Amino acid sequence: MSNEPLTRLRLDIAYDGTDFAGWAKQPTLRTVQGELEAALATVLRKDPPTLTVAGRTDAGVHATGQVAHVDLTAAQLELLAKPHGRGAKPMEPTRALKKRLNGIAGLRSDVHVHDVTIAEEGFDARFSPLFRRYEYRVADAAATRNPLLRRHTVWYPATLDVDAMTESADELLGLHDWAAYCRPREGATTIRELQEFAWRRDETGVLIATLKADAFCHSMVRALVGASVSVGEHKLDGERLLGIRAEAQRTSEFKVMPAHGLTLVEVGYPEDVAARAAQTRARRDAS
Amino acid sequence: MSNEPLTRLRLDIAYDGTDFAGWAKQPTLRTVQGELEAALATVLRKDPPTLTVAGRTDAGVHATGQVAHVDLTAAQLELLAKPHGRGAKPMEPTRALKKRLNGIAGLRSDVHVHDVTIAEEGFDARFSPLFRRYEYRVADAAATRNPLLRRHTVWYPATLDVDAMTESADELLGLHDWAAYCRPREGATTIRELQEFAWRRDETGVLIATLKADAFCHSMVRALVGASVSVGEHKLDGERLLGIRAEAQRTSEFKVMPAHGLTLVEVGYPEDVAARAAQTRARRDAS
Repeated sequence: MSNEPLTRLRLDIAYDGTDFAGWAKQPTLRTVQGELEAALATVLRKDPPTLTVAGRTDAGVHATGQVAHVDLTAAQLELLAKPHGRGAKPMEPTRALKKRLNGIAGLRSDVHVHDVTIAEEGFDARFSPLFRRYEYRVADAAATRNPLLRRHTVWYPATLDVDAMTESADELLGLHDWAAYCRPREGATTIRELQEFAWRRDETGVLIATLKADAFCHSMVRALVGASVSVGEHKLDGERLLGIRAEAQRTSEFKVMPAHGLTLVEVGYPEDVAARAAQTRARRDAS
Repeated sequence: MSNEPLTRLRLDIAYDGTDFAGWAKQPTLRTVQGELEAALATVLRKDPPTLTVAGRTDAGVHATGQVAHVDLTAAQLELLAKPHGRGAKPMEPTRALKKRLNGIAGLRSDVHVHDVTIAEEGFDARFSPLFRRYEYRVADAAATRNPLLRRHTVWYPATLDVDAMTESADELLGLHDWAAYCRPREGATTIRELQEFAWRRDETGVLIATLKADAFCHSMVRALVGASVSVGEHKLDGERLLGIRAEAQRTSEFKVMPAHGLTLVEVGYPEDVAARAAQTRARRDAS
């Protein structure tokens, strides 16, 4: 790549994670990043760019509100704007890229690019977010089990006490060290601000957890949901969840819940993205 | 089978129709009836009973509110009530049947038996219904396309005029001959009472049609939805939908919509089921 100026595009993406080995590219496995970058290579023909993502979801995890960015050269933007196919008209490069990506066979129908836009100055999909929001769906014995929703809903054999779960989830909020609820990764901090953790039953009785944080460490959402489910079964109580966190040690007192119940539903960016990205980068370098 | 008295059980069933060649048993294809009857044979060991269903859904069509019945002998009920597996306790035969059917591998997770109950005197899953209700889901260009819901949602390239669709759907209601909107079947009447046909957008913009009738003739829901979608694209108008019906001839002016957007959501039974079944049978014999 030369030093020519690049234009950063923001991609808003949804996927059914069932048939993917997660977001991050891997040599021999079908991944969301791998498929999208292959599609970009097909569309742009040469110098295929790489994607930077807000949430590197694990194998089996879904997304309805994933965000990524990609940097394109002026020549690549021009190529996109050119009429494509007989009788076609020139098109905005962003609109053309959305249309072309959604038409690529490799993405089948389990990935959908909702939107492609020119990113604001200083936007960084990974470093600009103020928060990530996830949902986790559990159909317990009291819920109506809908086979049409089974790919993103965990079927749980017991009936769960949603009031106990709600109360104890609320007590967990705040800026804390979540080491007990994270799978350790070298060099990654386990200090995060949990801003929201709430449970509700939808109209079919399915339990839905919403979790929001500045960022989550690895497997943190599924661990917190597993601890919460243990409270719902009256195997643990809210006080013990706080005790586990204080001990900062992984424990076998609860189970990390399966990946397929989890969906990344929103990534929130601030008005002034450039300042936010610089701030986040500085904090991570310091940690 | 001997002439011993039989107990009729009602089964409330949901399925993802994607991997089924419809409800009705077929020699070499995976069907919902075929899988459920094989599961019954496994559970009951001998003299496997057959299922009678409210809605014989086509290949690819889903159900969240399907109803079927099955007649069991006293010996079969006793067998179900016996403790199953080490340390198990005796169980109500209905509860045992639900549990055993949902545990059978052949049903995988794409069929779920919501409930098994002893049917009221005179109940007949096929002849007692007052109505069947279906939903059809279309994500047009104005909707948010969620890959997690793609198995029961049709992605449509144009933006549809839901007001025009709603208005013309309303004009179609009533007792009429629907021959123009049915795939003909020998000996089957095409006179039906369309009691409800309404469109709405859900919170993600997906268009959902609800259709309710005493019964639907073959492919009638998908034909009506197809005609309605043509109105939504301003290719047909409400008056023409009535004209097509009056001509009582199949037409190529609209397309029958794909199976996978369709879900049987409810079968309604009257308080006095025995009287209703006798009435329906008499009417069908007379036609």
